Amino acid sequence: MADLDVADLHGSLTDRALTSMNFLNEVANHYPDAISLAAGRPYEEFYALDDLHSYLDTFSRYLREELGYDEAGVRRAIFQYGRTKGIVHHLVARNLEIDEGITVDPEALVVTVGCQEAMLLVLRALRAGPSDVLLTVSPAYVGIIGAARLVDLPVLAVAGGNDGVDLDDLVAVVKKARAEGLRPRACYVMPDFANPTGLSLDLETRHRLLEIAAQEDLLLLEDNPYGLFPAEGVDRVPTLKALDTERRVVYLGSFAKTALPGARVGYVVADQTVAAPDGTIGLLADELSKIKSMVTVNTSAVAQAVIGGKLLANGCSLVSANHRERAIYAANLRAITDGLAARFPDGTLTWTVPSGGFFVVVTVPFAVDDALLEKSAQEYGVLWTPMGHFYDGDGPVHSLRLSCSAVTLEQIDAGLDRLAALIDDQL
Amino acid sequence: MADLDVADLHGSLTDRALTSMNFLNEVANHYPDAISLAAGRPYEEFYALDDLHSYLDTFSRYLREELGYDEAGVRRAIFQYGRTKGIVHHLVARNLEIDEGITVDPEALVVTVGCQEAMLLVLRALRAGPSDVLLTVSPAYVGIIGAARLVDLPVLAVAGGNDGVDLDDLVAVVKKARAEGLRPRACYVMPDFANPTGLSLDLETRHRLLEIAAQEDLLLLEDNPYGLFPAEGVDRVPTLKALDTERRVVYLGSFAKTALPGARVGYVVADQTVAAPDGTIGLLADELSKIKSMVTVNTSAVAQAVIGGKLLANGCSLVSANHRERAIYAANLRAITDGLAARFPDGTLTWTVPSGGFFVVVTVPFAVDDALLEKSAQEYGVLWTPMGHFYDGDGPVHSLRLSCSAVTLEQIDAGLDRLAALIDDQL
Repeated sequence: MADLDVADLHGSLTDRALTSMNFLNEVANHYPDAISLAAGRPYEEFYALDDLHSYLDTFSRYLREELGYDEAGVRRAIFQYGRTKGIVHHLVARNLEIDEGITVDPEALVVTVGCQEAMLLVLRALRAGPSDVLLTVSPAYVGIIGAARLVDLPVLAVAGGNDGVDLDDLVAVVKKARAEGLRPRACYVMPDFANPTGLSLDLETRHRLLEIAAQEDLLLLEDNPYGLFPAEGVDRVPTLKALDTERRVVYLGSFAKTALPGARVGYVVADQTVAAPDGTIGLLADELSKIKSMVTVNTSAVAQAVIGGKLLANGCSLVSANHRERAIYAANLRAITDGLAARFPDGTLTWTVPSGGFFVVVTVPFAVDDALLEKSAQEYGVLWTPMGHFYDGDGPVHSLRLSCSAVTLEQIDAGLDRLAALIDDQL
Repeated sequence: MADLDVADLHGSLTDRALTSMNFLNEVANHYPDAISLAAGRPYEEFYALDDLHSYLDTFSRYLREELGYDEAGVRRAIFQYGRTKGIVHHLVARNLEIDEGITVDPEALVVTVGCQEAMLLVLRALRAGPSDVLLTVSPAYVGIIGAARLVDLPVLAVAGGNDGVDLDDLVAVVKKARAEGLRPRACYVMPDFANPTGLSLDLETRHRLLEIAAQEDLLLLEDNPYGLFPAEGVDRVPTLKALDTERRVVYLGSFAKTALPGARVGYVVADQTVAAPDGTIGLLADELSKIKSMVTVNTSAVAQAVIGGKLLANGCSLVSANHRERAIYAANLRAITDGLAARFPDGTLTWTVPSGGFFVVVTVPFAVDDALLEKSAQEYGVLWTPMGHFYDGDGPVHSLRLSCSAVTLEQIDAGLDRLAALIDDQL
């Protein structure tokens, strides 16, 4: 007999949102020789161990020369417990100004253990009672659904449509929820080259989304891991946060794709004001910081120093730090869509042609499930992601996600040949 | 008008467990020149920036030479996303074998973002419904109460008494809770030189606690940040986990005091078996890992590499890595208790004489509250911690905690003079 029964543990542990990551990782680990058009991790050929040393040195020099720390102070900043909201907040604020045109008080930033912790902190703060619900544009990144499960926050899906978000559906979902006595707290959206759809919101849709958020008194949780990677010839569109004049947007930031995932450093901009019972007004960032003190205490100072050093080494611009990566992702994305067009000229399949990011969604004339992925891995040697993992429900889904970020052009070519063989055999 | 009202956010945000850390930090920041007999951070004079570089190099060499990684594999391990349960698990298992005589399957370990994340993961897993409760030996570390608040898990206090835990009270609390329809899931305890009491459980009490846990079908959450720091001439006592033959103990580990806090690396040993709905048996560690994937994804590989390097550089023994620190803490602890005896020979005060760790509790003949701490900081230039912060209630508390870890002998001497002046003025 086992010591414990999973039925006696938190309900999230048997929820698809939490088991699906595990399943996908297991398939990938079980078939290490399969070509992975599933992995969304960043391109790694430019990583160099020496960079870690130079980033640490650069950040130490910044503490000494720019902030005036003495040697003991530098050691204390990097080795000891630190400020809960982080120690690279000024550098992140500079980065947001330079790369995104977002002007933010560094005090409104919380540096987190990756963007995932930022999501958890925000959802934990917003879930005050059983009538609270979160809206997400659907299909959505698994991490936001999983974080919602951990704080017992139900998720209502808003149709993504062809524009990245169906604004009429958003209003309808909000009104229906309220009619049922529910309290929609926020809507999660990835406006730039979304995971998993690859879709982006155009400028007009962004403005209208902000208007609706104001009308309906909703917060928008803007997640932007891929914004720096537009396709060849595509211009970037301002983020919601850059357009936000009423503090409607909580901005979730990641350095995983633009610096390195191994640091696990992300952040949240939470400049919303919060009234305390005694009438004092503080920042949502400070409320998130209180929660963070009981989740991770603070983000590793060593890890922050690495990210701080990389920012400093690039004049705080990650656009300029990612010229080579951007070109590779753009070429790979193009290779996937061109490769699909070459292999499926007859219209049996459709696929998205994203204006940037890592992902292409392919729609096929049969249901795509985990069993088909296992078959694909074992018999065809190619990995991809069943789109069902990004929907908060169990209905059949006829599409799959391809990722261009962790492969070479040769692997894309071979991977698409294998995928085409699988698909032909299913038809 | 503010954008949000704290009354519409999660209840933990107005709870003393979460605001108390903030208050204590604010007082410390506001009076930087006060002598801190409050700070529980480790001694920092031996920290050296060069060590970071050598730890990273040592860990890279281990991946290459001991685990057989090629250069691309080493870069991938340190720069990319990694195994949710961590990448230094074999080294932590070796450390537990060498320093604690705990033999553990590395697969039963989850490497976490400090011990705080380990607590959160365990409490999140154990809180399945509204009848679940956590027991903690009281007074208790603020972090466990705070983590319980974040997952809406009520906390029942078990008297600590003079032996570190009052076993009769433990049984009584369990029985009373069950009679009320509650489900006690676990009891949190710090058996070695506890924060805040400084008390330790003797060997017999440990055996009896394990027996009671088995009788009452309770898990024990053993937290052990200070075990490596016994006082001069004191022998270490085996941990509960080392004595645990029935997988009753979930062991919470920290490298903050024994390596460096700035890495934010801790771990949990969760070797309990868990039955899944399909009848398969897994490890509690794997359930915790699923939750972790939605809290922080994985612990920073860079931070793990630093801790892994420090472990490797010391033959995986943190006992041998901490000879100098142990001697300093022992001398400082002695200086505090000797200093109190010299200043208060007449019996107006009492204090604990711990057999190790960082903390001495002083009981005074008047109530000790936050206002007195502020007065002490402002008028007397000495910081300490009101013991009320470690009780889950609001009653008056007549004691304060002194910490010996982040001060010199000279600062202890001057700090005690200032404390004596404050106390004399209160009498």
